[in-house]
Amino acid sequence: MDYPSEQRPGAPVKAGVPEHGRIPKYYAVKTQIASLLDELGEGGLLPTERELTALYGVARETVRQALRELLLEGRLRRAGRGTVVAGPKLEQPLALASYTEGVRRQGRTPGRTLISLDRFPCPDALADEIEAERGEPVWHLERVLLADDERVGLESTYVSVARVPRLDVDFDPDSSFYAYLHEALGIGFGAADERIETVLATPREALLIGTPPALPMLLIHRVSRDIEGRRLERVRTLFRGDRFSFTTQLAARN
Amino acid sequence: MDYPSEQRPGAPVKAGVPEHGRIPKYYAVKTQIASLLDELGEGGLLPTERELTALYGVARETVRQALRELLLEGRLRRAGRGTVVAGPKLEQPLALASYTEGVRRQGRTPGRTLISLDRFPCPDALADEIEAERGEPVWHLERVLLADDERVGLESTYVSVARVPRLDVDFDPDSSFYAYLHEALGIGFGAADERIETVLATPREALLIGTPPALPMLLIHRVSRDIEGRRLERVRTLFRGDRFSFTTQLAARN
Repeated sequence: MDYPSEQRPGAPVKAGVPEHGRIPKYYAVKTQIASLLDELGEGGLLPTERELTALYGVARETVRQALRELLLEGRLRRAGRGTVVAGPKLEQPLALASYTEGVRRQGRTPGRTLISLDRFPCPDALADEIEAERGEPVWHLERVLLADDERVGLESTYVSVARVPRLDVDFDPDSSFYAYLHEALGIGFGAADERIETVLATPREALLIGTPPALPMLLIHRVSRDIEGRRLERVRTLFRGDRFSFTTQLAARN
Repeated sequence: MDYPSEQRPGAPVKAGVPEHGRIPKYYAVKTQIASLLDELGEGGLLPTERELTALYGVARETVRQALRELLLEGRLRRAGRGTVVAGPKLEQPLALASYTEGVRRQGRTPGRTLISLDRFPCPDALADEIEAERGEPVWHLERVLLADDERVGLESTYVSVARVPRLDVDFDPDSSFYAYLHEALGIGFGAADERIETVLATPREALLIGTPPALPMLLIHRVSRDIEGRRLERVRTLFRGDRFSFTTQLAARN
């Protein structure tokens, strides 16, 4: 039987037991620590590295490698000077709705911190995506995304200055850009193309979001259109891979 | 100007240049190698580690770390005894359509290799997801997914034996399971709930897919319903994070 009843659906099959070859020592320790995390429960304090080293009778580096992977996967998080069992990943719907709305739906408080708001001449590569002319001024709005004051993502929005001329004076960066477009300019969103991939955080991104360097992130590229079908904005949103998952409902095409 | 015109849309902002703090040396080298890859173009042969070490005047371990990240991100791939510039990631639509259909649409040849087909008693955690009774027999079909003979993913399908009684005798594991359900049993897919996240490959998974250990993967959980709305199957599909991205079209809800 390869789906033991105590295993969560969606967990890896026969975790860590290659059919041939040996289980790496660090992975055996990782599996044991993972069981310990289930026993401790969310928020539970993990024993120290030294204690785990003694408990499993392995080298300190072996315990470190196991903990590193559990941290990257979001099973653990640092809290003050200790390490605690993390809660489940936030589930954000892949929908036209804003980040704000998605986070609220999960009972969390969304927030945003402005990193920069710049104007620059539209490069070729971007012109087509936002229906701008090459060289015409474009806004780049960069914000850190928060959930309950925790930094969870980094968002870059590119939109032509002609469409949103007063972005630098009217817009509160700690509010929803989509709500602003709708309320101040009567611009509604009609559709968007999205692409999702996994990338490693750059040092700059890790610094801004406060993650370990090279943490796997979920990167969402969005090009959206207004209700008249005009291309409106290009967005690059990076979410902590250890804190987020994305959900979608698929239906048969008729 | 923070969106230089030679930069691809969607690339990180001011890559690797933290506002405060220094750029890690390996990251500076990574940025230089990334430019070299653009010059070499897809399939181009990378200089050896030794040559890169001499070229950039850094320690061999620094070059190694840079190459490790470029490999994890899918910018490079091993080919025979050398390392070459990888092509772009495959773009798979998030749609009810099968893997088979998605890969074909990109001009690639889909394939599957059977790892195992087992029956086991349905555990509690799975019963609700596939409308089975606890303890009733369930199939677990595990296959490696191929694109043009390259191993790119690993899929586990769970479905009750009562619904697909002859799976072990009728079904060619190197064919589409959805096509089989449709053609042999008249079962059509109506809808599915999906969740996408990033995880690290377990040693077993890395071995089966032939990836470096702990490569970031994209994991898709699916629970699907037939056209009558009955829950049908639970699927766990792991895709190489360095080879795949997923696309979706979003529309405003009316």
